[in-house]
Amino acid sequence: MKKYSELTKEELQTLKKELEAKYKEFQSKDLKLNMARGKPCVEQLNLSMGMMDVLNGDSDLTCDDGTDCRNYGVLDGIKEAQELLADMMEVPPDQIIIYGNSSLNVMYDTIARSMTHGVMGSTPWAKLDKVKFLCPVPGYDRHFRITEYFGIEMINIPMTADGPDMDMVEELVANDDSIKGIWCVPKYSNPQGYSYSDLTVRRFARLKPAAKDFRIFWDNAYTIHHLYDDKQDNLVEILAECKRAGNPDLVYKFASTSKISFPGSGIAALASSHNNLDDIKAQLTVQTIGHDKVNQLRHVRFFKDIHGMVEHMRLHADILRPKFEAVIEILKRELGGLEIGTWTEPKGGYFISFDSLEGCAKDIVAKCKKAGVEMTGAGATYPYGKDPHDSNIRIAPSYPPLSDLITATELFALCVKLSSVNKLLSQMK
Amino acid sequence: MKKYSELTKEELQTLKKELEAKYKEFQSKDLKLNMARGKPCVEQLNLSMGMMDVLNGDSDLTCDDGTDCRNYGVLDGIKEAQELLADMMEVPPDQIIIYGNSSLNVMYDTIARSMTHGVMGSTPWAKLDKVKFLCPVPGYDRHFRITEYFGIEMINIPMTADGPDMDMVEELVANDDSIKGIWCVPKYSNPQGYSYSDLTVRRFARLKPAAKDFRIFWDNAYTIHHLYDDKQDNLVEILAECKRAGNPDLVYKFASTSKISFPGSGIAALASSHNNLDDIKAQLTVQTIGHDKVNQLRHVRFFKDIHGMVEHMRLHADILRPKFEAVIEILKRELGGLEIGTWTEPKGGYFISFDSLEGCAKDIVAKCKKAGVEMTGAGATYPYGKDPHDSNIRIAPSYPPLSDLITATELFALCVKLSSVNKLLSQMK
Repeated sequence: MKKYSELTKEELQTLKKELEAKYKEFQSKDLKLNMARGKPCVEQLNLSMGMMDVLNGDSDLTCDDGTDCRNYGVLDGIKEAQELLADMMEVPPDQIIIYGNSSLNVMYDTIARSMTHGVMGSTPWAKLDKVKFLCPVPGYDRHFRITEYFGIEMINIPMTADGPDMDMVEELVANDDSIKGIWCVPKYSNPQGYSYSDLTVRRFARLKPAAKDFRIFWDNAYTIHHLYDDKQDNLVEILAECKRAGNPDLVYKFASTSKISFPGSGIAALASSHNNLDDIKAQLTVQTIGHDKVNQLRHVRFFKDIHGMVEHMRLHADILRPKFEAVIEILKRELGGLEIGTWTEPKGGYFISFDSLEGCAKDIVAKCKKAGVEMTGAGATYPYGKDPHDSNIRIAPSYPPLSDLITATELFALCVKLSSVNKLLSQMK
Repeated sequence: MKKYSELTKEELQTLKKELEAKYKEFQSKDLKLNMARGKPCVEQLNLSMGMMDVLNGDSDLTCDDGTDCRNYGVLDGIKEAQELLADMMEVPPDQIIIYGNSSLNVMYDTIARSMTHGVMGSTPWAKLDKVKFLCPVPGYDRHFRITEYFGIEMINIPMTADGPDMDMVEELVANDDSIKGIWCVPKYSNPQGYSYSDLTVRRFARLKPAAKDFRIFWDNAYTIHHLYDDKQDNLVEILAECKRAGNPDLVYKFASTSKISFPGSGIAALASSHNNLDDIKAQLTVQTIGHDKVNQLRHVRFFKDIHGMVEHMRLHADILRPKFEAVIEILKRELGGLEIGTWTEPKGGYFISFDSLEGCAKDIVAKCKKAGVEMTGAGATYPYGKDPHDSNIRIAPSYPPLSDLITATELFALCVKLSSVNKLLSQMK
């Protein structure tokens, strides 16, 4: 195919008519498809149904240390669950707190606590004139909503295939003590599926923030969420690296089993230094008597150990891999060589990131919606929902059945073409 | 028995020797008993083991409205759970949010949100010079710890058998706009087991607080937690009463199934006006994608409806009633007529409240501990842990087996006598 930018006005006009006819065909199909959120599909949920059988009415719900999981107590999680999630998060089991069903909730609470009580004795952020966060972009909309909700000013940091622009990060945190944190999805990032390089992680561990209460919010959401057995990204472990760098308290590491067991009914965890954990537990003990230990035990009995969990993730991969490959194949087939968009080809995680010609993303998403396919809102991958180039679109291939996904992606590619043709034509006027 | 105050010095000295001998006997028994917390006992936990069987690997985990409980979503809880807990809380099902496993966590979050974001548009409490809460005393230590943690000044309000001193409450809230809330356990109160009279509830609903963001924190923890079939306290429903009084937004009502199903793995709920719920959901949607719906469904499938839940509570009562009766019988037998202490005789809830002679509570609790019986710390039932009379002790009869409970209560009564004798003797010097 010829690059769109090399087409004449007449060629573009002819192409536009063809594309519009195809678009009308799609519209007549009355589609109702959703590629908006990173939701596991039914087949993935079915993988964990065995979890409903590991505890039954005859079960002994007692932990190895004698704790009755049914009763009150145990603030930081049962030992068995700490071990399992420590192995998953590659941290020592005594550096972890097991929470309820949502790591997002843990991140929210971490910011909320810093607002009202500061970090390890620092001034509460709510009492400061200005608090800022660094936000690698494109990034995860729900992270940005938390910081926006608390009135924290967000600064865009460009992402590269190696991670955030570390020159910029280092420079900013060293010189501005109102910068209190950075949102990171270090592995199979949301939405690009990039994993931070070893050098990036090492530079993170060696940051010299002007603010003593600066923390890296390390959302390791996709730590074992590979698509392939033979092609897996590996990450330098940040807690250990921070310790080696003499910065042991620099990072909060978050994870959950939401995309391993059941999205609404998994268990979440936070790993950090003992200093940070002590600071957190002083608050946690006021907030709750303890999280759901029966569900913690259910996870341990189902997965048994990290090997069981990793094997389980291969079953997820078997379902997700064809979906990711189908999307990428269609994008290549339909858009390859046209120079009207670029996309990532992740080896794990839940998303593919697409960048259209500047100023087309909103239009593409709107066109998809009009023809019955819901995408993540354009702009959602940027703080305040504002993509300065209006070009990034997050594609979430996990939820629709493969046949629907193929239809949806074909429509998406068509909308990209149509929107690009319109843009090029409008520039000729 | 003769009143202790009428004993001569010699009689007291003789008595002291007898009591000390008995105390030594107890010490030699190497007891390790716990009457400190309102923890259900093993037999009570066993009542809900059937809950482990209602969902199994072959179950359809779909709600009536088609929601797959295993996946993400549904911020305010599945409809079936809203209905069940609405019936339990005596509110309309559209005026309820179902949360995770801890109503304490919901109360904490409610205060935390008010600190950073205010209440329905009011100034965030963290930005005010002074925020105060009214605390009926004796009361629940975990309530007080939340307000203390946020630096909220707590004002003691004396409890009566009809509820808090409403003259004082009305006067204070009408004239001080820094008073933003009051902690209430309106039914089978913690620790006295008192239930607010109809008039008290009506006066609450008709409060005219100077602060528009004043809220009643109505912790209805023991709403269906009766000890008897034929003697049950009944409460005027506060939400409806507030609506009738033209004060629909005045109250947050909290409850959970922690002492119905499993203490660590129940479901919690908040009921309030639509205005308040909208205010809360604007925050909740930033904090989480949703709570554990599988556990919500598990509760619904197990209890089926409010009738099932009420029948289940009769089984709890059958276990708890003999324990409450044993404690009260021993207190009557050992302390009746001595005028060295008074106690409550609740018809429900989890506690018996004991008041010793002034200045004896800490000593009694310490003596119990030295002989192997852990009580709730003296002072815990007051804000800042400071009982101005050092006389209130909370007795929690639920956890120990009946035979242990009898031993523990006998020791407790002995410690009360010994401490009282010492006090009376010291006054004679």
